[in-house]
Amino acid sequence: MTFSELIEKKKHKIELSNAEIEWLISNYVKGVVTDYQFSAMAMAIYFNGMTNRETAALTTAYVNSGKTYDVSKVQGFKADKHSTGGVGDKTSLVFSPLVASYGIKVCKLSGRGLGQTGGTIDKLETFPGWQSELTNDEFIKVVNEVGMSLIAQSNDVVPADKKIYALRDVTGTVDSMPLIAASIMSKKLIIENDGLILDVKTGDGAFMKTVEQAEDLANRMIGIGREHGRKIAVLITDMNKPLGKAIGNAIEVKEAWDALHGKGPQDFNELVATAVGVTLLQAKIFDDLKTAKKDVYKKMQSGEAAHFFKEFVIAQHGDWSVMENYDQVFTNKHKIEIKTKTKGFVKYNQAEGLGLLSMHLGAGRQTKEESIDHAAGIYLNKGFGEAVEVGETIMTLYTNKEINPEWEQQAYETFTIVEKQPKEEVIIKIISDDVK
Amino acid sequence: MTFSELIEKKKHKIELSNAEIEWLISNYVKGVVTDYQFSAMAMAIYFNGMTNRETAALTTAYVNSGKTYDVSKVQGFKADKHSTGGVGDKTSLVFSPLVASYGIKVCKLSGRGLGQTGGTIDKLETFPGWQSELTNDEFIKVVNEVGMSLIAQSNDVVPADKKIYALRDVTGTVDSMPLIAASIMSKKLIIENDGLILDVKTGDGAFMKTVEQAEDLANRMIGIGREHGRKIAVLITDMNKPLGKAIGNAIEVKEAWDALHGKGPQDFNELVATAVGVTLLQAKIFDDLKTAKKDVYKKMQSGEAAHFFKEFVIAQHGDWSVMENYDQVFTNKHKIEIKTKTKGFVKYNQAEGLGLLSMHLGAGRQTKEESIDHAAGIYLNKGFGEAVEVGETIMTLYTNKEINPEWEQQAYETFTIVEKQPKEEVIIKIISDDVK
Repeated sequence: MTFSELIEKKKHKIELSNAEIEWLISNYVKGVVTDYQFSAMAMAIYFNGMTNRETAALTTAYVNSGKTYDVSKVQGFKADKHSTGGVGDKTSLVFSPLVASYGIKVCKLSGRGLGQTGGTIDKLETFPGWQSELTNDEFIKVVNEVGMSLIAQSNDVVPADKKIYALRDVTGTVDSMPLIAASIMSKKLIIENDGLILDVKTGDGAFMKTVEQAEDLANRMIGIGREHGRKIAVLITDMNKPLGKAIGNAIEVKEAWDALHGKGPQDFNELVATAVGVTLLQAKIFDDLKTAKKDVYKKMQSGEAAHFFKEFVIAQHGDWSVMENYDQVFTNKHKIEIKTKTKGFVKYNQAEGLGLLSMHLGAGRQTKEESIDHAAGIYLNKGFGEAVEVGETIMTLYTNKEINPEWEQQAYETFTIVEKQPKEEVIIKIISDDVK
Repeated sequence: MTFSELIEKKKHKIELSNAEIEWLISNYVKGVVTDYQFSAMAMAIYFNGMTNRETAALTTAYVNSGKTYDVSKVQGFKADKHSTGGVGDKTSLVFSPLVASYGIKVCKLSGRGLGQTGGTIDKLETFPGWQSELTNDEFIKVVNEVGMSLIAQSNDVVPADKKIYALRDVTGTVDSMPLIAASIMSKKLIIENDGLILDVKTGDGAFMKTVEQAEDLANRMIGIGREHGRKIAVLITDMNKPLGKAIGNAIEVKEAWDALHGKGPQDFNELVATAVGVTLLQAKIFDDLKTAKKDVYKKMQSGEAAHFFKEFVIAQHGDWSVMENYDQVFTNKHKIEIKTKTKGFVKYNQAEGLGLLSMHLGAGRQTKEESIDHAAGIYLNKGFGEAVEVGETIMTLYTNKEINPEWEQQAYETFTIVEKQPKEEVIIKIISDDVK
């Protein structure tokens, strides 16, 4: 096997065998295949794509390149949930306790935020002392004792994807659907869970700008899952507007905690109930989504699942008291209120703009090396579609940084006030064999 | 301007501006754009191509990356001729003296051979002491005094193409028409000649395997020439069989010398007469190709142009006596005669095989570092279409190496003996504004 043979095949749209893909990836990780060769291959893949089988083989090669997690000692159905990344997306924080409350186990790896997109690990570090890194044994212990555990993926998982992603980032080969699908799925397949909910975001604030792109990605990931014998359901959800009302870290954890007590924003509740509902179908706890969701809503109202979240934070050494003394702990030097100039209904249409603004306020990072301010963020006093009078506060910006006069303008650009109440549609499509 | 912007444009088939192409190439030469970025760009160009304007701009950027030759002090019409490379192609050695005999000047850069393809500079080094490298002033002096000069391109011309070619070679991006066209044309445009004949070879022994590919390349090079205000004519010629009967170095020089005295093989004579004829139209010495070619044939018969070649070799310090004592100087330890087993007509159909065999005999090089044996080579005792009886010698292999028993078999694979005399067609097509 030589690189030359493989690149000629891919150039002429001849399918690569599983052995050829394994050869390519393992030799790229070893440095036998060079960066300049792999970038040519990535560009050929951008143009000629990959079949489902090729993409599944690529994912396997990614998984085989590094450490995997052994969760065989976890009892019961094991659920996982992944979002392609959005603004204000704190779903995992509410999904996991609710799922755990049904006796389903959540063994989940999460990521950090970059650019406009927040990360679950960053949000959980709102709790001082909370440990994102556990050994395999500690991880299993928390899952078995609490019912859920979320950890940061260690540096030694999927090194192939890490190396390839860094290369794609600087060679114009990020937007290749099979490469995106393999990248996401490899990080899910390193834990042998039974069920997986993929929340594929679409719209302005998401990587997939159109529903068609989101569906394409969804189907590719389902294809990979099928080749690997996993139960996968995809929710295609809207990311033209942020999810919920809180954007940041501590502020999102607080909103999640509220949602676990029936006080979450309606769009967020609906996404959570749907994701949990589909998981309940995968685990065969319910037969139809409507009944499942009704039950989940009941649990949110009663607050009975909330304690799983608190126990999980404490089990991973997080200081829970910050949540009880929120206002004293998460202070901001500046609070900028954005007020309406006209009467009507609020329509957010630039989730990306809000994500970037939140980043500039200190809640996110522009480069991987930057630290974040857990107190900073944005609160949407008026949610999508809410009625406003002239002079009412639409949103509040929280920051400990020096005020940048451009922020206010940037905030105004993220919404319009319209005359007719805009319709909100969070879940665009559900793709699942379990949903009838 | 950033690489990221440029690669996105090329991926989406948006034309790059001249300034963007200049930026890309100059920054790649400087190392600001990395190998892995440029290889992704080359692959995007492979898939999405380049317009004529883009290809012309790329060629300009190549030319601008290094040294150019100043031939403004050469009097009269300046002609050039280039072949895309074939087996047994000694056309330049006969073309140049003939053209010079009309008072047209030939200022030509030539290359060395690699793989199955021979190189004019290697052939000229048959003359001990012959200098392939001249300063710009020496070059002009030889041209003005003799009427012609062929030199090796110095290392500091088109460094961009050199760097890019080396990268393309290992990244599967050699077979991109705009990149091939720019590469060839840049090396022609570094000398400001007035007319240019491009001999685009097609067939088994050539890089362009089909006439369609050859025409595509031809039209791209004409496009580049037009953008640079050059008179270009293209001859698409056959390379399923070798050109003439001699393959090697000294043996080809001898065949060239014979052709200058009316004793060349017919296919070779026809190609030379056509190339010279079209040049005479470009220089407005004749009005129609038929008359021009007739005049060229007359000069070949009379041998009146031959002295230009001898004077040129001597002007560049070559020892002419080797040609006069050919058999004593160019000796070979082994002489292998390939004899027919059947009666019929010879049909060569594997020019590439003959080129590679000649290389194995010592006449060519597999890698750039290898040295060559000027005495080695192949002589086709029977040319294409000639009648043969059983037991007659078809070809003779000359070598100073130890005999490899596979050579004989390889030789037999390059021809078949057929019942009906095969038709020979050297010139497949002429593309020129000057030919009516």
